[in-house]
Amino acid sequence: MTVKPPLIDGLQYCNWSEAIFRQMRAGAVDAVHVTITYHETFRETAANIAAWNRRFERFSDLIFQGFTAADVTRAQQTGRTAIFFGAQNPSLMEDDIGLIEVLHRLGLRFMQLTYNNQSLLATGCYEAEDSGLTRMGREVVTEMNRVGMVVDMSHSAERSTLDAIAHSSRPIAISHANPAVWHPARRNKSDTVLRALAESGGMLGFSTYPHHLRDGNACSLESFCEMVARTAELMGVEHIGIGTDLCQDQPDSVVEWMRSGRWTKKTDFGEGSAAAPGFPTMPAWFKDNRDFGNIADGLRKIGLRDADVAAIMGGNWLRFFERSFGPQSVDRAT
Amino acid sequence: MTVKPPLIDGLQYCNWSEAIFRQMRAGAVDAVHVTITYHETFRETAANIAAWNRRFERFSDLIFQGFTAADVTRAQQTGRTAIFFGAQNPSLMEDDIGLIEVLHRLGLRFMQLTYNNQSLLATGCYEAEDSGLTRMGREVVTEMNRVGMVVDMSHSAERSTLDAIAHSSRPIAISHANPAVWHPARRNKSDTVLRALAESGGMLGFSTYPHHLRDGNACSLESFCEMVARTAELMGVEHIGIGTDLCQDQPDSVVEWMRSGRWTKKTDFGEGSAAAPGFPTMPAWFKDNRDFGNIADGLRKIGLRDADVAAIMGGNWLRFFERSFGPQSVDRAT
Repeated sequence: MTVKPPLIDGLQYCNWSEAIFRQMRAGAVDAVHVTITYHETFRETAANIAAWNRRFERFSDLIFQGFTAADVTRAQQTGRTAIFFGAQNPSLMEDDIGLIEVLHRLGLRFMQLTYNNQSLLATGCYEAEDSGLTRMGREVVTEMNRVGMVVDMSHSAERSTLDAIAHSSRPIAISHANPAVWHPARRNKSDTVLRALAESGGMLGFSTYPHHLRDGNACSLESFCEMVARTAELMGVEHIGIGTDLCQDQPDSVVEWMRSGRWTKKTDFGEGSAAAPGFPTMPAWFKDNRDFGNIADGLRKIGLRDADVAAIMGGNWLRFFERSFGPQSVDRAT
Repeated sequence: MTVKPPLIDGLQYCNWSEAIFRQMRAGAVDAVHVTITYHETFRETAANIAAWNRRFERFSDLIFQGFTAADVTRAQQTGRTAIFFGAQNPSLMEDDIGLIEVLHRLGLRFMQLTYNNQSLLATGCYEAEDSGLTRMGREVVTEMNRVGMVVDMSHSAERSTLDAIAHSSRPIAISHANPAVWHPARRNKSDTVLRALAESGGMLGFSTYPHHLRDGNACSLESFCEMVARTAELMGVEHIGIGTDLCQDQPDSVVEWMRSGRWTKKTDFGEGSAAAPGFPTMPAWFKDNRDFGNIADGLRKIGLRDADVAAIMGGNWLRFFERSFGPQSVDRAT
């Protein structure tokens, strides 16, 4: 039996609906790491999980919750999409390291140590100063390593990211960002970070979110694919994947929550501005889950080999999932 | 009518009991800033407040909750002790700036921006790196200024403390610490900090907690009083008071909670050590609330004038309370 290479997206945060799940199936998407929480508390996150459980029950022919890498294969075999949970801020663990194992049991497989601001664990990319991993941050990374929860530094500042790579005994992820050398957004990553990430066995997911793209949503597919190819040379093709950051059908109130949470009484515009405060329009070549083929075609068109395209479109994430979601083995170095 | 100078303690965290409240009355203590929470959430802090409300109801002949500086006078007039609430960590506000005004309404008059570790707001004195006030920290200090909640930097790191003094539009407090030049503990404060605190109209409360004392609990009363007098020369006598940090009758499990909270699975010994993990024994000249007279006598003995002793023992805190606990006037600089 020929196993089809998997198609995996390293990050989405859509306004979930049957229409979107049907697009996932139309696009043959096998697995997606979805954000289930930003600034929500543990209790609020439990409510978000309950909402996901209702979706899993109602749309069981389209989606199911993924817990292990084997669930990607199960998704392929049953013609559905496996949904893996992640958090874009550590708010959900509040100040309790004991909640890491509890959240892992609930299926949380990725947790960003920060969103844009300083957290109890590390520094976000919008702070003026970056003090690296905190005392609690070091303890929590060790605990995440132990239970099998991926440290995700997509929104973190440079020194904190390098600290996390160095301190973590297992490879980490930057699930949705691009190289800063291609587009110098605050959220994109330096070559120093990308090299350290690759050397430690970590993964970068390329973002299609307009603020992370050269020329925003006018970015050409060719420019995006050439950036991917250059990054493959820098990091090695086995350390890269896709992390679209697709925020389909979300009202602008959601991006306000993402940026301003409850930490300020003002409005923080984050990557946007007072003139353009809402979600940006996506590039023409990636509007929804049916468009992954455009990216794969684009990569082939600029000369990438089929095997490399398959690795980038999901094979690398699958291998990373296999090594990352289980408990840390005590009798072997990971 | 002659008004007796007030006796005010700038910080206590005892295992509260009728015996302790009776000692407060025996010692003629008019007001105490008490810690009601360390790492507790908002909900857990509400439970702590409910426990205080039961004490206020049961021991209404001895204590009552203080909300304004006028309550110190009311305490003197009714022969009771006014209890003012404070927090030693911002955990109770979780990540919600809106809770500052809610907590002020509940009577919270002091909030430390950090305990020993990095918080969402600033850096604690046990972190290796001190990045100063965070984005959220600046927003929260402004909100505390607006409603009349005192920024307390007793456990914060140097740069964060200087940042808070500079950013706050109202004077701040270091409610319980001593000069590092006298005893170089991590919790004690540099002359740079003490000068900036005084210049901004802030207050220092001298601690009698053994880890903050030269020679620990063997520290002589004379040495303590000479330190006070030297600090009066540095800061001006109007910027100093007492903040004993009395932790009477507390089991060692409490100091474990203070230090380790829920942020680590290990035991953090803070100012203690594996060999001496518990609460230290207090100095012979300050065992409980009946011993403030020893300090006042000691200050007179080394040559301080009666007026200055009265200012240090409570007059300065009272004036600070008068300027600090109400809403910020918009039509005048505070």
